Amino acid sequence: MNAAGRRTSAPDSHVMSIERDRALNIGIYIYENAEVLDFSGPFEVFSTATRLTNSESSFNVFLVAEENRPVNARGGYSLNPHYDFSAHPEIDILIVVGGIHTEELTKANVVSWVAATSEKARVVASVCTGAFILAQAGLLENLEVTTHWENIEELRESYPNINVVDSCRWVDEGKFVSSGGISAGIDMSLHLVSRLAGLELAEKTARQMEFEWRKNS
Amino acid sequence: MNAAGRRTSAPDSHVMSIERDRALNIGIYIYENAEVLDFSGPFEVFSTATRLTNSESSFNVFLVAEENRPVNARGGYSLNPHYDFSAHPEIDILIVVGGIHTEELTKANVVSWVAATSEKARVVASVCTGAFILAQAGLLENLEVTTHWENIEELRESYPNINVVDSCRWVDEGKFVSSGGISAGIDMSLHLVSRLAGLELAEKTARQMEFEWRKNS
Repeated sequence: MNAAGRRTSAPDSHVMSIERDRALNIGIYIYENAEVLDFSGPFEVFSTATRLTNSESSFNVFLVAEENRPVNARGGYSLNPHYDFSAHPEIDILIVVGGIHTEELTKANVVSWVAATSEKARVVASVCTGAFILAQAGLLENLEVTTHWENIEELRESYPNINVVDSCRWVDEGKFVSSGGISAGIDMSLHLVSRLAGLELAEKTARQMEFEWRKNS
Repeated sequence: MNAAGRRTSAPDSHVMSIERDRALNIGIYIYENAEVLDFSGPFEVFSTATRLTNSESSFNVFLVAEENRPVNARGGYSLNPHYDFSAHPEIDILIVVGGIHTEELTKANVVSWVAATSEKARVVASVCTGAFILAQAGLLENLEVTTHWENIEELRESYPNINVVDSCRWVDEGKFVSSGGISAGIDMSLHLVSRLAGLELAEKTARQMEFEWRKNS
């Protein structure tokens, strides 16, 4: 139902080679009633990509929650975050997922953590309605952004300074990348693997996952 | 890379209508080093389908592990099963997932639980290398079965009485359904929603997940 992803700017300054001293830290923010596939899809992509490189120096993917206790994702799926806000490794790539996101928008500590973590991150990405959390943190002004098809109008009305676009799997604006709903986060994560470690690894990852990646082509 | 699913027999005797007294219980078996998307994909499908029916009487999806403690899925993803072998609701649809499955084949209590649970279930499905666990329990003899493309030959050699097929997303043999690797479990789960509750709900679920379902068509 959607076209493939689109890159609206050339994010050359953010391109990183896989040749580096340590793994890139991919931090995925999860919360009560986060959508299960929104975080498990990207987790699968980055952990599979790491496995395929036969190297510990590619990606280190982990889940971060507000507090260090089990998180009940949507549908009653209980998982244990790797870290909480008070102590986590430096996050190079921050991924903020969707789900029942509305309560997150009202939490000052969540919004300020997202803003502060984004400032230090090299890439900040949203899946589905995770875009609302980035918007609330004031990170998306004047950028092209997408979200779940059901929430396009709401995002447009709530944050009039964002250029909300639909009919694409993901939008790459350089530092900020956003995807459509749920499974589109897998396509976007594969795009990030391609951007950060090369197209060949992204294609191998998609094949390992037996996922028909809709890349930007 | 794969064709869509194929149905090798008419599973009419197993078709259930969504009109029934209670939700269908979908039990997903998870274990140490199970592949994250193998179980989170089907969980997302059945929980989203339930949400879209606006009814509590469609699907009740839960995770079952050998013991009642956190399970470390592949890549270091820790989750808390809903139930263990000693106490779980009656399972109507059993889904056995893949990952690093080899240790499961050596556990007598796992193999016997899968065999006993399958006997009472109406549908038994495998994702990815979960097919090896069903095979080890003696459930797949003389049936057409698929698995992850990397493991097709191994399944064929290990269990010569199974008709192992490749180049399809899933195979429906009536009571037993098997899918290809990782993301193919999402296609198969959407097929099960279609079979159990109708094509319309399956298509709505795929659209809600923004997933391009490769159905049997």
